[in-house]
Amino acid sequence: MTDGRKARGERTRAAVLDTAVALASVDGLDGITLGQLAASHGVSKSGLFAHWRDKEDLQLAVVDRAREQWWNEVVRPAFAAPRGIRQLWALHEQRMGFYERRVLPGGCFFATAVHEFDDHPGPVRDRIFDALRHWLRLLRNTVKEAVAMGELRDETDPKQLAFEMQAIGVAVVTHSRLLASASAYQYSRQAILDRLRALAIDPSLLDEPKRNGEPT
Amino acid sequence: MTDGRKARGERTRAAVLDTAVALASVDGLDGITLGQLAASHGVSKSGLFAHWRDKEDLQLAVVDRAREQWWNEVVRPAFAAPRGIRQLWALHEQRMGFYERRVLPGGCFFATAVHEFDDHPGPVRDRIFDALRHWLRLLRNTVKEAVAMGELRDETDPKQLAFEMQAIGVAVVTHSRLLASASAYQYSRQAILDRLRALAIDPSLLDEPKRNGEPT
Repeated sequence: MTDGRKARGERTRAAVLDTAVALASVDGLDGITLGQLAASHGVSKSGLFAHWRDKEDLQLAVVDRAREQWWNEVVRPAFAAPRGIRQLWALHEQRMGFYERRVLPGGCFFATAVHEFDDHPGPVRDRIFDALRHWLRLLRNTVKEAVAMGELRDETDPKQLAFEMQAIGVAVVTHSRLLASASAYQYSRQAILDRLRALAIDPSLLDEPKRNGEPT
Repeated sequence: MTDGRKARGERTRAAVLDTAVALASVDGLDGITLGQLAASHGVSKSGLFAHWRDKEDLQLAVVDRAREQWWNEVVRPAFAAPRGIRQLWALHEQRMGFYERRVLPGGCFFATAVHEFDDHPGPVRDRIFDALRHWLRLLRNTVKEAVAMGELRDETDPKQLAFEMQAIGVAVVTHSRLLASASAYQYSRQAILDRLRALAIDPSLLDEPKRNGEPT
């Protein structure tokens, strides 16, 4: 295979997976077929079989791609914030932005996938659970760092706070449809701000950036 | 039709719907077929068509039955608690009990159904959304009552608190699988207790019942 063909194949593979993540955020992973993906990218079904030998293999690759996307769109930009409590808040804020921008038509790949697979043991569920556990661990470690830096009170329970941030974060995916959309994001932000301020040594670290330049 | 046959028909209808709610909590509403339900109850498929003319008609009846079950298993027992902040806590506590007892094999009918249908407009989604909005309204009204009774601070935002109780309540359905099961319930209870105590005029109303008889 020439380098050109290899690069083209790689681009097709990435584009097909992006489409699959978007479709799965609406209809779930089981709704995706190689035939449908081939048609939407104008390639042959047999061409896609060169990348994924069966449906499960494709589903695993889609989970990996969704995780990569979450890293690029949520985690990486949040890591640009100063370490500690502001990074914790940035993780929530970037997540809200990811949902608000409608990066995925269904709002969240993992919110749909976990409800689809949580009762179905197997490699796909394991991969989805791995991704979610990794995210919870990242939240916990960010809490621990903020405690170690003296920005969150010593009695802060990292597992408790990570649970709450995940619960309050994912809830907007359904609530933004149930309620007037903007309110759900507002409630979710308020809930996490209240929680972080209650646990902060210096709650003013969480003031709006615009206030920083104002006279005190 | 004789009264006996009518009563038998009614019992079959209720039993089939209970099975359908349980199955849908695992596989979603779209996974349910009249053929499968007929087989599991030893009745003919055409017999079931007498109750529901098509799949959508069956799905609507299943949503109604799940709502009735939620009322009987969660709301009604919580209403036995004293009005005000203790009733609000009882709604969360009864919900936790409903999940912990595994009344439904998938944990929660609505948690699965809302992720399945939220991107699919139509009568079934409307019926699911109606049920969830009704539940949120019930939470809000219980908050308002607790404020009116002077048990929650005046500045309590009923919509905000209802959002948090729903988010923190439903989160255990997936978290009890992701984490060691017991921890998820513990985190969910702790989160709501912390929140209610922070907003309560007299937080001791939320002390464990066993403490009531202890010397102070």
